[in-house]
Amino acid sequence: MLTLATARLLDYSGARHHKLAAAVEFIHTATLLHDDVVDGSDLRRGRRTANIIWGNPASVLVGDFLFSRSFELMVEDGSLKVLKILSNASAVIAEGEVNQLTAQRQVNTGEDKYLDIIGAKTAALFAAACRISAVVAERDEATEEALDSYGRNLGIAFQLVDDAIDYASDAETMGKGVGDDFRDGKVTLPVILAHARGNTEDRAFWQAAMEGRRISDDDLAHAKALLAETRAIDDTLTRARHYGQRAIDALGPFAASAAKSALIEAVEFAIARAY
Amino acid sequence: MLTLATARLLDYSGARHHKLAAAVEFIHTATLLHDDVVDGSDLRRGRRTANIIWGNPASVLVGDFLFSRSFELMVEDGSLKVLKILSNASAVIAEGEVNQLTAQRQVNTGEDKYLDIIGAKTAALFAAACRISAVVAERDEATEEALDSYGRNLGIAFQLVDDAIDYASDAETMGKGVGDDFRDGKVTLPVILAHARGNTEDRAFWQAAMEGRRISDDDLAHAKALLAETRAIDDTLTRARHYGQRAIDALGPFAASAAKSALIEAVEFAIARAY
Repeated sequence: MLTLATARLLDYSGARHHKLAAAVEFIHTATLLHDDVVDGSDLRRGRRTANIIWGNPASVLVGDFLFSRSFELMVEDGSLKVLKILSNASAVIAEGEVNQLTAQRQVNTGEDKYLDIIGAKTAALFAAACRISAVVAERDEATEEALDSYGRNLGIAFQLVDDAIDYASDAETMGKGVGDDFRDGKVTLPVILAHARGNTEDRAFWQAAMEGRRISDDDLAHAKALLAETRAIDDTLTRARHYGQRAIDALGPFAASAAKSALIEAVEFAIARAY
Repeated sequence: MLTLATARLLDYSGARHHKLAAAVEFIHTATLLHDDVVDGSDLRRGRRTANIIWGNPASVLVGDFLFSRSFELMVEDGSLKVLKILSNASAVIAEGEVNQLTAQRQVNTGEDKYLDIIGAKTAALFAAACRISAVVAERDEATEEALDSYGRNLGIAFQLVDDAIDYASDAETMGKGVGDDFRDGKVTLPVILAHARGNTEDRAFWQAAMEGRRISDDDLAHAKALLAETRAIDDTLTRARHYGQRAIDALGPFAASAAKSALIEAVEFAIARAY
């Protein structure tokens, strides 16, 4: 989607971006299939996950298939530069996922480390999807970097909002299980802020929660109260707006156009989801 | 390993094959990590599997990482032709794994379909690993095809022997759990032959076994008796020798050398494992 939208921004008139956009979507879908296996998730985009319907083995193998097919599509395109960008993004994503697994239940994860993780697991693919448009449109390095920056900052904003609504919303509006991150011991920015700002008792609670020892509905309600008290959700969203603004500013060099407005709207939509 | 050995056969004096051999090993290891998750295996090469020691999530994600890194290595090499061969092999492997999952517990799987599956899930990577040596050594299409054929036939022979020893050996000598295929309802060539050659009662037994309704130790003993009676193991190994011989004959055009002898020995070793 981002590849198509940024190609439109550049007035690119070729056809290569369709195949490459498909390649990006395949990588994305492969990571979602594997993520849901890793997390044992049962709800995604408001529907039952593939692993729940068809089982983990099918999700692992179909993910591998999509991933392989995505590389075939890139090789068909034939640009080593595009291949380099997307294969690097894939490796960074996979490394980010492993790092996230390592950080799981570690309540002392710092904000910087957390940003590194979501920069890898989420924002790298956003950035690559946008950057390759500049490559196929044969634009200069500065254009590549502007689009990379747009995608990367949008990706971070998107992920931070996702982390916030895991605590602030209900399953019906967010399309995934509410409190999933809490029960999985995922140390996201809301938790990092609330933990850092809390007193000794609060910190002990967060540690117990992240270690899976306090994850009842009452505990989740208590977590939400602590998040409100420390303004952790509000400030996570403030951080998200910061990255959203950087994404919009990265588009500064581009003349006004319908395509540019659409890209700006995408940022605004990503953030408005939380409200 | 095969990439290095075939490059030696061609007297290739460059250094590109090291990186590409690593890329092949990464793909191979990634598929093993994912296979063990899919099959829930607990023993591989005589040791506890990664999924047993570190859990399924780590195995899925580290597999993804190795797979991505493998593509990065290929892109660093920079040959689109090599990229095409290996990305195609990866897609074929993944498709073969999905097909195998679909065929699981289907006792009516035919020998041809089974050969298609192992041709994809096992032999495609053997073939690609050998073929890319000819590409980096800049040999003609006939050389590429000869090495592809060597690898493909060796891969099939290797897999058929693997299938046979799952019934004929014990965990200590084979390095994986004995009877694993039986308990997992994997319809391998020994089962296909024994089922095809059995009477009505035998076929009902195999169907029940593959569907997971008769998988006790006594059932496994009965299965082994039926396999012996129908000569299904012997004939699986005869088939394996057929493919092994084709692998050796594919090397016909190459002059005698230490490298050629080593490649022939690899075939002989793959088959001798069963005895």
